[in-house]
Amino acid sequence: MKRTIHATVWNEYRHELRHEAIRAIYPEGIHGAIAGFLRDAGIQAGTATLAEPEHGLTQEVLDKTDVLLWWGHMAHQEVEDEVVQRVYKRVMEGMGLIVLHSGHASKIFRKLCGTDSELLRWREANEKEILWVMDPSHPIVQGVPDHIILPHEEMYGETFIIPKPDELVFVSWFEGGEVFRSGLTYTRGRGKIFYFRPGHETFPTFLNKDIQQVIINAVRWAAPAAQPPQITLGQIKEPLMPIVGMTENKLSELYGEDYTLKG
Amino acid sequence: MKRTIHATVWNEYRHELRHEAIRAIYPEGIHGAIAGFLRDAGIQAGTATLAEPEHGLTQEVLDKTDVLLWWGHMAHQEVEDEVVQRVYKRVMEGMGLIVLHSGHASKIFRKLCGTDSELLRWREANEKEILWVMDPSHPIVQGVPDHIILPHEEMYGETFIIPKPDELVFVSWFEGGEVFRSGLTYTRGRGKIFYFRPGHETFPTFLNKDIQQVIINAVRWAAPAAQPPQITLGQIKEPLMPIVGMTENKLSELYGEDYTLKG
Amino acid sequence: MKRTIHATVWNEYRHELRHEAIRAIYPEGIHGAIAGFLRDAGIQAGTATLAEPEHGLTQEVLDKTDVLLWWGHMAHQEVEDEVVQRVYKRVMEGMGLIVLHSGHASKIFRKLCGTDSELLRWREANEKEILWVMDPSHPIVQGVPDHIILPHEEMYGETFIIPKPDELVFVSWFEGGEVFRSGLTYTRGRGKIFYFRPGHETFPTFLNKDIQQVIINAVRWAAPAAQPPQITLGQIKEPLMPIVGMTENKLSELYGEDYTLKG
Amino acid sequence: MKRTIHATVWNEYRHELRHEAIRAIYPEGIHGAIAGFLRDAGIQAGTATLAEPEHGLTQEVLDKTDVLLWWGHMAHQEVEDEVVQRVYKRVMEGMGLIVLHSGHASKIFRKLCGTDSELLRWREANEKEILWVMDPSHPIVQGVPDHIILPHEEMYGETFIIPKPDELVFVSWFEGGEVFRSGLTYTRGRGKIFYFRPGHETFPTFLNKDIQQVIINAVRWAAPAAQPPQITLGQIKEPLMPIVGMTENKLSELYGEDYTLKG
Repeated sequence: MKRTIHATVWNEYRHELRHEAIRAIYPEGIHGAIAGFLRDAGIQAGTATLAEPEHGLTQEVLDKTDVLLWWGHMAHQEVEDEVVQRVYKRVMEGMGLIVLHSGHASKIFRKLCGTDSELLRWREANEKEILWVMDPSHPIVQGVPDHIILPHEEMYGETFIIPKPDELVFVSWFEGGEVFRSGLTYTRGRGKIFYFRPGHETFPTFLNKDIQQVIINAVRWAAPAAQPPQITLGQIKEPLMPIVGMTENKLSELYGEDYTLKG
Repeated sequence: MKRTIHATVWNEYRHELRHEAIRAIYPEGIHGAIAGFLRDAGIQAGTATLAEPEHGLTQEVLDKTDVLLWWGHMAHQEVEDEVVQRVYKRVMEGMGLIVLHSGHASKIFRKLCGTDSELLRWREANEKEILWVMDPSHPIVQGVPDHIILPHEEMYGETFIIPKPDELVFVSWFEGGEVFRSGLTYTRGRGKIFYFRPGHETFPTFLNKDIQQVIINAVRWAAPAAQPPQITLGQIKEPLMPIVGMTENKLSELYGEDYTLKG
Repeated sequence: MKRTIHATVWNEYRHELRHEAIRAIYPEGIHGAIAGFLRDAGIQAGTATLAEPEHGLTQEVLDKTDVLLWWGHMAHQEVEDEVVQRVYKRVMEGMGLIVLHSGHASKIFRKLCGTDSELLRWREANEKEILWVMDPSHPIVQGVPDHIILPHEEMYGETFIIPKPDELVFVSWFEGGEVFRSGLTYTRGRGKIFYFRPGHETFPTFLNKDIQQVIINAVRWAAPAAQPPQITLGQIKEPLMPIVGMTENKLSELYGEDYTLKG
Repeated sequence: MKRTIHATVWNEYRHELRHEAIRAIYPEGIHGAIAGFLRDAGIQAGTATLAEPEHGLTQEVLDKTDVLLWWGHMAHQEVEDEVVQRVYKRVMEGMGLIVLHSGHASKIFRKLCGTDSELLRWREANEKEILWVMDPSHPIVQGVPDHIILPHEEMYGETFIIPKPDELVFVSWFEGGEVFRSGLTYTRGRGKIFYFRPGHETFPTFLNKDIQQVIINAVRWAAPAAQPPQITLGQIKEPLMPIVGMTENKLSELYGEDYTLKG
């Protein structure tokens, strides 16, 4: 029997409230639009936004979240460090994370990258984007064509200052002359991460059926396994070698508790 | 003409001062031993330690450092965040970083990893370690045998909670039954990083000629190029598409300076 | 609704017929043992062996195979090139392939690797092997512990002359001092490949529940997607640029049909 | 003291002889042009062509070649299998290989890839190509800008059916809407391989200073080390475990020489 996946869609939810043109595209907010198509695909999807207490990401919410989706743009600095740390801890434990569009500059993605991932080339010119599939065997691209044409998007261009991805799933072409690694996977701790570039707030990108399929696939891919291996950081069950060295060479009396720093 | 590489060897330098047995192995400190064999190889090597002002890692020192080597163990928490940030910034700019042994739990390595890289299995039992070369074509293993036997070392065992490495250079075997990914490369920003596992303070590991050769090779490999490509994050030199979108659809007046967050 | 996966377990099936001690472990052959536990896991599993016409791998059999498992050892050279080519073509189309133990030296694995993957260090000394999980988030290790102890196995040691794997799932420790990259994934064409080291014919390795779980997981992981992206190697559906160059600069009359070599 | 690198530039050398327009660009052939700028960079460069006996790639020539460059297009099938095997063997031993443009469909590159690397999307429309640097810290991109604009080139588009590259150095943008992984590295055996996309015979691509710099860098990067680790496939120098199993359990009398197949 297949488990039901619990997703939480987090959105800054500020552009939609301020600008009528954007609200016209996403009347329930970007989070509402994404949660809607996830539900249609049989995924149990809740939402959370910046303005809620603890940004809607309480420990209780995160504990029951299999996959967190993150859309943020203009207010990255307003996200509380404590909440970022809480999300980070859940990723380490195995929660999946889907980072969308300008979420590349969010505190949580930057922390997980360990590099200046907020840096990239960009231009808002309503130009055409074509996303090309790099790996047709990847679960994230099942049911989508080998390229997706978005008539209007914001441009993001290389060099994108990210760690080398575990897998390169999409590369984007932009009308103005740039390319961008648009679909990337990483593993951090036990958590699987997918960064997906498209989704500027002024365009109906999240209404595109192929974009929706990619996100649905990514949620399924990033959901933690029911039975991951238990990582045993102390002695293994059937120890092959007793810890004898310490007493013999008197290092234990030298060091005392210094070694509690590790693992 | 070949450039001279400037290395700085940073050491916590506490074990050596406290314990005579360790001082007997490294009379000039671990940093002194490492700087010594780097100089013999034609690398200009300075040193810096925790107790110095700014831990010896002033902006001036870092600015002229091509490759920083880092050995720390019991006092990771005493390293000032400001210095960590300064080192991080230099790695982004292209400074190489060699992280040795328990430096896996240092603030700087954890920040660059973006995962709980301080976690691993460990045991001090003076057991045998054999480092096996995974990639004989890698510059870091030139001039060394395909396996290096260390009669006595501390054990580190998997699962090591690190990001998937760009390159896996060594895997270690331990007498007690464990294995460990012992030689790993990463790229962060423009900086090249090498993590190298061996080097517990109670053993003369840094006096081993093969270990020395690996570290010398790693310093040469991690040194920044003289002429890296300039990353242009604004307009490209020969723009193919003017930025027209903003005015036309009035988004600029909607958003104002919000977009200065990016790049 | 979940699709049923069709697996075919191919075995050289020679050791079992020649040696009573091996037949005692695998009375139905290694292929029979593997097909048995796959069926228990709900996978539809058939078998094929070297002695059958076309080695049991007719086009018809391969066409309905989602995942092929391969065990061979002493008779790699007796596998017909035509059958190897047929298997290769199916991998390109998306058939999964699980290569077991000494299958590393099979014609099909060597062809897919593109390097001297038959080369490695080895020793038959009935020694202990411990397989350590490198990536606890990987689908192939779900439901298994973070290390698997096999009391007796043949040793394979590095340096294993393989292409850099897409993913490193297991590393083995051997009693005699060696390590080995024991669980590896690759993608070739649309096909997913998993190499899994253990399984010497003289030991009851395939009766071990954890080893069985890994192989069951691997079959599920390697099964082709129902709806992979169609790779369009000609013109894209909405051509952005007409093919005009040839006529204008008269290259078409120069080259004629030479270019039919490509794609 | 720095070693002199010996490169051999192999060219099909057919287009230049047949078509005046191409000869006008490359009066000494594509091989002559490449060998010329390599020599200017201090690399000792010879040439070899299809029409020569053994295609100019005798064992003697290959034995003294550190890095082989390969340009072929219309006559891949005319390259003798014996010569391909000879080149393959030298790559295993450590010779570097730079595969240019339509060399992606050559016998040697296909053999090293182990997948249908001849498949890709293509169009000859004299369109603009922009190569973007993915990894500014890579030795192959030193001294070049972060993007190279070629006003006219043949288009190659994804999905390119290649193994996942060890490193992704360049991605190309094409005027007509496609992208392509244009600069890729692989390791096979001890040999380093670089595939570089540009270089259609009808355009003066190899006269572009940045393209030349990339190729010069690639030759230096791919040259084998003076002292690679010796791969020891038999017993290790200091054996930790004697081979005792065979006699004790009588497997040796069962198997006889069957095991000579391995390594």
